[in-house]
Amino acid sequence: MLIDGTPGGTLSAADRGLHYGDGVFETIAILDGRPLLWDRHFHRLQSGCARLGIACPEFALLAGEADRLCGDSRRAVLKIIVTRGSGGRGYAPPEPQQPVRILSVHEWPDHPAAHVQDGVDAPWCGIRLARQPALAGLKHLNRLEQVLARSELASSGAPEGIMMDTGGLAIEGTMSNLFAVRGSELWTPDLSSCGVEGVVRAEILARAADWSLRPVIRAVTPDDLVSADEAFLTNSIIGIWPLRSIGGRALSRGPRATGIGRALAAAGAIVPP
Amino acid sequence: MLIDGTPGGTLSAADRGLHYGDGVFETIAILDGRPLLWDRHFHRLQSGCARLGIACPEFALLAGEADRLCGDSRRAVLKIIVTRGSGGRGYAPPEPQQPVRILSVHEWPDHPAAHVQDGVDAPWCGIRLARQPALAGLKHLNRLEQVLARSELASSGAPEGIMMDTGGLAIEGTMSNLFAVRGSELWTPDLSSCGVEGVVRAEILARAADWSLRPVIRAVTPDDLVSADEAFLTNSIIGIWPLRSIGGRALSRGPRATGIGRALAAAGAIVPP
Repeated sequence: MLIDGTPGGTLSAADRGLHYGDGVFETIAILDGRPLLWDRHFHRLQSGCARLGIACPEFALLAGEADRLCGDSRRAVLKIIVTRGSGGRGYAPPEPQQPVRILSVHEWPDHPAAHVQDGVDAPWCGIRLARQPALAGLKHLNRLEQVLARSELASSGAPEGIMMDTGGLAIEGTMSNLFAVRGSELWTPDLSSCGVEGVVRAEILARAADWSLRPVIRAVTPDDLVSADEAFLTNSIIGIWPLRSIGGRALSRGPRATGIGRALAAAGAIVPP
Repeated sequence: MLIDGTPGGTLSAADRGLHYGDGVFETIAILDGRPLLWDRHFHRLQSGCARLGIACPEFALLAGEADRLCGDSRRAVLKIIVTRGSGGRGYAPPEPQQPVRILSVHEWPDHPAAHVQDGVDAPWCGIRLARQPALAGLKHLNRLEQVLARSELASSGAPEGIMMDTGGLAIEGTMSNLFAVRGSELWTPDLSSCGVEGVVRAEILARAADWSLRPVIRAVTPDDLVSADEAFLTNSIIGIWPLRSIGGRALSRGPRATGIGRALAAAGAIVPP
């Protein structure tokens, strides 16, 4: 682990990341020593920092530190946290700020290959996502909704659960984004009120034409998913998991999820399963 | 600062308090070495931990550590953070958990005495509070809404700002609870969708009959505040600040805020101004 470039595993207990969740993070797949979708991850980190008014570390600095930590890893997960640092009177941000960056490397998780090949059965989570446009899209450190959602899944052993917002729209998985194929359209939920704008989601939206699909960002209802030609989940670590069922209702299966997963792996955007 | 009872100022950078805001906190006034409203603070810490599924430290343990830190302080602020500790796979809480407690003592803030005597002018914050019943009432570590609200106030120099929820109801200040007196009724916003259930708020609701007021927890609109006989803000550190205006609209003034403040100070519930 590197904290502001120095090896170590501890942080000031006065850090605002701890006190308020005042910061952002990235979870990045490392393949053969190289961070995948690095530009997209950095861009999101930068825009998240900008929205919270935190000075983002320079790309070259982060790239150098990532290489120190992961340059020798065949497959690994790199996590980058940027907080606003310590100080300030209560909630008020300090002036000037000294942001803190924390880079840590983690073992590649052993998700079963069957999740990619055969798909997953995902329950609906009981907890809903609150609608907060000021924080929507950001991968910030206020993640209690996801912690509670994940706690619900513990007893079922489900690998992922799907979250609605408080208005009943389907938004995302606890750790993944959601897509549905309908004819020649590729739907993914509008995240302007809640949810995290994933980098694999962005990559798929940008490449949709490669698969003769028209990307559509819109409100997606639970019924939209159930009546889709197929639906799937994405993130930087899992790649693409087709959805076999949601909340016990079987979904149609199609060839798109697998095809998109193979294309992304071939392009070096995700780790091949 | 005491971390799990040991003097020190650093914390594991793997702590879930940092990664997810996975924990709760208390901010407690210390007067002549004694934590005020200690039972209420502990009760809230305990019920917050219970709602998040975190094991709460024992009262005797916290009381002993508070005494070590603050026993000699005439006036001070004690902050207690309890996190779920380190570990877990992503958002999923670890099993078993090893919660971490962090006690720190801070200087008594130098809020102007005029805020208590003459009241404050509070703007409306632009950012709204999201409606999240699963987290409402809790003093948890996901506080980005308050950080952003407080950032808005920086340029105006206002000592506090009032927050609406996304539905346009008045909920609370960025660091305080809100009351309005209407005839013989004492209104305070319903916090079942968002907001923090303050200990001074609870104390005032419990004692309302002392002042011949009937406590009413209900939806409060901005117009309800402006047409009230008087309105005021409360928290453990500021005590009671009468509201002189909200968002530039003058409020009526009355004798209740000052009377309640004096009674609470006389009862040892808040620090006398």
